[in-house]
Amino acid sequence: MPSGEREAISELTTGRLSVYLRCLTYLESMGQQTVSSHEMAERFHLNSAQIRKDLAFFGEFGTRGVGYNVSTLREHLVHTLGLDRTRKIIIAGAGNLGMALADYKGFNENGFHIVALADNDPAKIGRTSRSGIPVLSYDAMTQAVRVNAVEIGIIAVPSPAAQQTYDAFVDAGICAVLNFAPVQIRLRPGVKLKSVDLRINLESLSFYLKNVEDGTCGG
Amino acid sequence: MPSGEREAISELTTGRLSVYLRCLTYLESMGQQTVSSHEMAERFHLNSAQIRKDLAFFGEFGTRGVGYNVSTLREHLVHTLGLDRTRKIIIAGAGNLGMALADYKGFNENGFHIVALADNDPAKIGRTSRSGIPVLSYDAMTQAVRVNAVEIGIIAVPSPAAQQTYDAFVDAGICAVLNFAPVQIRLRPGVKLKSVDLRINLESLSFYLKNVEDGTCGG
Repeated sequence: MPSGEREAISELTTGRLSVYLRCLTYLESMGQQTVSSHEMAERFHLNSAQIRKDLAFFGEFGTRGVGYNVSTLREHLVHTLGLDRTRKIIIAGAGNLGMALADYKGFNENGFHIVALADNDPAKIGRTSRSGIPVLSYDAMTQAVRVNAVEIGIIAVPSPAAQQTYDAFVDAGICAVLNFAPVQIRLRPGVKLKSVDLRINLESLSFYLKNVEDGTCGG
Repeated sequence: MPSGEREAISELTTGRLSVYLRCLTYLESMGQQTVSSHEMAERFHLNSAQIRKDLAFFGEFGTRGVGYNVSTLREHLVHTLGLDRTRKIIIAGAGNLGMALADYKGFNENGFHIVALADNDPAKIGRTSRSGIPVLSYDAMTQAVRVNAVEIGIIAVPSPAAQQTYDAFVDAGICAVLNFAPVQIRLRPGVKLKSVDLRINLESLSFYLKNVEDGTCGG
């Protein structure tokens, strides 16, 4: 695929690939061997035309009347998303958020490995998260990024420290940053930044609540 | 708008409305009075046709050659998302994740108010988060939900306790639940559940890294 097309793949698309991967992993764990786009759409509340379009873009077409082979398609998505090798992660900020992320299931398995947390609080340096991830100083973090070829940095520091953390990550050679600080980051060329805005989830619930007519539910 | 249409509005759409709201809030803070869909798309890396379609669906059409009035459109989105009144929130689980969420900027302002955390650890009950949110027992939480008319419950407990937390929320009268536990919840009718999967963000970065050709970046 030409790199221009690659770049044109939106984050929404990769997000959908992640969702398909979860569905296929579930179906495989249940022993199911084939699945049609219609069945996948039905079971997981997705759009069957969108599924076919997304998968065809990555060269998967399924067999008419049979559908997709679950294991083959799953492996294909693992490969497409680059999850067939392990990428190392550093988390800057060993407060509640950093500690929660260090122990978050899914951040330290199946393609990802958290090498360390980093903090500038001497009381935190040298301790570990509940699951055993060590807390380093920032100097030691920079070292650890280079020595371990860490690819992903997570910003879990307070907003005023987010920019300098981003810059420290990039200077150490990190190419992809996941940012939890609700602040605008000045970007460096070639470095991918993904900012997580947790409030959007609350706004989606607010929209639902506004449209529940009589204000009661579940009854 | 008929309720069928309302229900058909996907979470992707409400997510985009939230993004537009952020852009407009920024433009308003900079003193800008009007904005076209093209300018919004350009400045915030969005799709102008999608913007026009989404806004037209909610009755906003803009003026040819002028665009949208920033403040009017912003107010319209605040109203559409139900953010023109404050919705109360309870967080179950006062571990690292619950504490991080209790102090997360955006969870306790502009339409949302966190009433309390809840935990079953006697060592945590009676304490507060850094920003002063109190930690209640689960019994006291149920009381607090009823007394304060709490509308949103956040599940920040370990996975094995997620289902019973969901059930306790619904029994207490909560209609909308935000779930951070990576586990399938058996749903009750009429209760909205939104599950947050933070790993999807890492997979999106992995996809980017896989397609960085020579493995270096940032020059």
